[in-house]
This record gives sequence, structure tokens and C-alpha cells, in this order.
Amino acid sequence: MRYLIKFSYDGSKYYGYQKQPRKKTIQKELEKALKEINANRRVLVLASGRTDKGVHAINQYAHFDLKTKIMPNNLKRALNSLLPNDIYIKDAKEVSDDFHARFNVKSKEYIYKINIGEYNPIEKEYVYQYCKELDISEMENALTHIMGTHNFKSVVKGDEYEDYVRTIISAKLEKNNNVITISILGTGFMRYMVRNIVGLLIDIGAHKYKSSDIKKILEAEDRTKSGKCAPACGLYLKDVYY
Amino acid sequence: MRYLIKFSYDGSKYYGYQKQPRKKTIQKELEKALKEINANRRVLVLASGRTDKGVHAINQYAHFDLKTKIMPNNLKRALNSLLPNDIYIKDAKEVSDDFHARFNVKSKEYIYKINIGEYNPIEKEYVYQYCKELDISEMENALTHIMGTHNFKSVVKGDEYEDYVRTIISAKLEKNNNVITISILGTGFMRYMVRNIVGLLIDIGAHKYKSSDIKKILEAEDRTKSGKCAPACGLYLKDVYY
Repeated sequence: MRYLIKFSYDGSKYYGYQKQPRKKTIQKELEKALKEINANRRVLVLASGRTDKGVHAINQYAHFDLKTKIMPNNLKRALNSLLPNDIYIKDAKEVSDDFHARFNVKSKEYIYKINIGEYNPIEKEYVYQYCKELDISEMENALTHIMGTHNFKSVVKGDEYEDYVRTIISAKLEKNNNVITISILGTGFMRYMVRNIVGLLIDIGAHKYKSSDIKKILEAEDRTKSGKCAPACGLYLKDVYY
Repeated sequence: MRYLIKFSYDGSKYYGYQKQPRKKTIQKELEKALKEINANRRVLVLASGRTDKGVHAINQYAHFDLKTKIMPNNLKRALNSLLPNDIYIKDAKEVSDDFHARFNVKSKEYIYKINIGEYNPIEKEYVYQYCKELDISEMENALTHIMGTHNFKSVVKGDEYEDYVRTIISAKLEKNNNVITISILGTGFMRYMVRNIVGLLIDIGAHKYKSSDIKKILEAEDRTKSGKCAPACGLYLKDVYY
């Protein structure tokens, strides 16, 4: 039987989603809990995609197969009783054998939070504390240039991808008191892509680049032509659409 | 020279404000940093009051004396560079020698956050995850009975106080999506008083008691007649007024 879970996590104490030897990761915790449920047999958990060290998830999804049939609600309850309290299963359901949490993704939404007000120690793991003025309307202009289908090589780490063309369906910004929330919905994301886009947006908000420079930066297809990578703590996987 | 600092902290990794042997506390961190600033001489830091293990502060205040005169802004900067990043000095100023951060308090405000929606692992240290329905209007009625001058022995831990009469100037509740924020402003608070009041309010919201029972419960002057103590993570010292 194949199951799909929807879950949330506080990434601040984890080395990201993906299993790594001797590191505390989300996948490792999920597989450890599922092994107990699956009569001590190993279970491979496949998520919609990895998240990096320190990145949070509001709605992440993963699928796995179990030997025995188990009521989804009981599965949810059993997992939550076994998992540490910074990972929470919101929902579990049966899916068909050909469902794949990564290959079936239609689009994904990320949000990124920036505090431009006074440093807030209570939110240090949950928002990027920039603590300086940013030109919001220039950042909003920049987002219109990010939207659409482009080659995003200039804002991706590494050269592991065959094709760097992706489509950003929607990119918007909201400011609430001193916290800016950037939401980016797209058909596919590559390594550090959202954080590099946000780094570039911050440089634009700080008048290091102009919003109209985005076209040129993307066309360069060269990571060194863009800005810094924004820190992990401000990033959240908001949702995944199948 | 006497200085007053205004500061904020994330209490989740601390054994409260007050110094204790072999425990990580806010006071210990402040005194360690100030010792470096004060030519390696011990500095006693006196706050407006203690906060318990796991309780946060948005605006806490403390005074101390230094041998040398130092510009308040430089003091702020030096302290922030020495302190861990979950404690932040928002402001520093010189005060007269007879100013006392505890004895001069006129009133204090606490807030308490309760999540009645789905469990949120990202906020587990910052809100009490009650995750069940509460009768908001009964809780609001209860707050009107809490306001005013009463003997609060029924909602205080221990019997160290000579006098249990205090005045609650304002007590209100706000609901934002699934998060309830209770704000209580009073002339003085005793140990666990806010958390015991919140515990009682939750019992009222869950229909274990009626809001009109508050009068009787307070008049009993007996801790066993009241409800449970609400957990530390939802509590914030919001501000202190001098």
C-alpha cells in the first residue's frame, strides 16, 4: 500500500530534509518512525523535494509503501506519537501505486520572510533579520521581471542540472509592519534558487542593482553576476500542488 | 554611573531570568558580558522582575552600576556584540543613582498566546498549542471578573508573599485566525500568577468552570480551588512601565 503524507516542520535543528550519515535530518526521523510502524522493516520516504539545512516547511509532502494496510488516521496518529515535536503530520491518505511525491508535482510555493525592523531575538530562526530599510516598490518591480519562463542559471548553485529553464507562475510581496513576505509559486525550483532570488531582490531593495537589471542578470546565465544567497532561516516551503 | 537597559529575549533555551548555579540564565549572560565591559569587575544586574524557565520577554528592563562612564549607544552596541543572539539590547540609558528597575515599577504587561488550531511545530516554543475549541466569549466574560483589585492567592504558587492583593488594570483577549492573545496589565504580579490565570481562563473556555465562578475561586484564597498552570512557552513579558 502506498501512502501520501502532508507534514510540517521546524527546520532550525535539522541538516535539511535529506538523509545524510550521522546528521539529524527530517527524512531520517520519518524513516525511523515508519520502521517501527512497518514491523521493523525499512521504509523509504520520498518527498516532493529536499529542503536545505535550517529551511522550514508549512506543507511538505512525501510518499512511501507499507507492507500492511493501515487506516490513514491511525497512521497519522502513530507517526505523530513517534516523531519529535518539531515535525508534525497534518494528513495521511492512501494513493495509487503510481503516485510519486516528486515526479507528480505540478507546482510549488515558497515564502521568504525578512524583518527590516529592529532585531527580534524571538524570531531569529524564523525570519531573516535584515534590520535596514529596503525599497519595497523597486522590489515589487523586480518580481514582475522574475515572473515567467526564464533560464535561471544565474540564481542556482552548482551545475548539476541539464536544463535551467523554469517557469515562475506568480511572485509577490507583502509588507506587514516591519516584516516583508515574498511568495514565489513556480513549476520547478533548483538548488538555492529561491534564496538566490531573494538575495538579488534584497540587493535591488538596497539599490545595489536596479529592478530593470534582472533581465541582464538572468541572460548572463552566470551565478557570479548575481547577488548573495539569503540565509536559510527565512525560507519556508509553503505548499506543493499535484 | 547607573544604567537602565531595555532588552528582549527568547526564553526557550534558558532556565529563566535569575542566576542559578550551573544553569544557563539571562541574568548570568548579562553579567558575563558586563564584566568584560567593566574592566573585569563583577556587575550585579537587577531586572524589573524574574521570568521563569521558557518564558520570553519583548521588553524587559534592568539596571546596573559601572565604574566608568560609557555612552549609552556604545554600551548597547558592546553588549549586543558580546551577548548570545537570543538576547538583544534594544536601548540603554543613564539613570539617576536612586533609580531601581524593580522597586520603581508602576505596572507591567504580560501577553499569553494560545493556538487553538492545528498543532504548528514551527511555533512550539512560542505559543501554547491547545488545539481544541475554546468558548471565547466566556473567556472574555471571565477577564472582566479578573480585572480590579483582588486577593490572588488562589492563582499564585507558594506562600512566600505577605500580601496577595494586587490590581489588574486591564485584561483583554484578541483572536487572530486560530491564535488567542491574552493581555494582562497590572500593578504587580506574583509567581505563576499570569500562567495560573490563563490556566483558569482555559478551563472556563473549555466549560470546566463558568466565568461567574471566578469570584468564588478568588475568594477561596486557595490554590487547589483553581485550574492548572498554563505552560511557559506561551508567556511573554510585554512591557514594564516606570
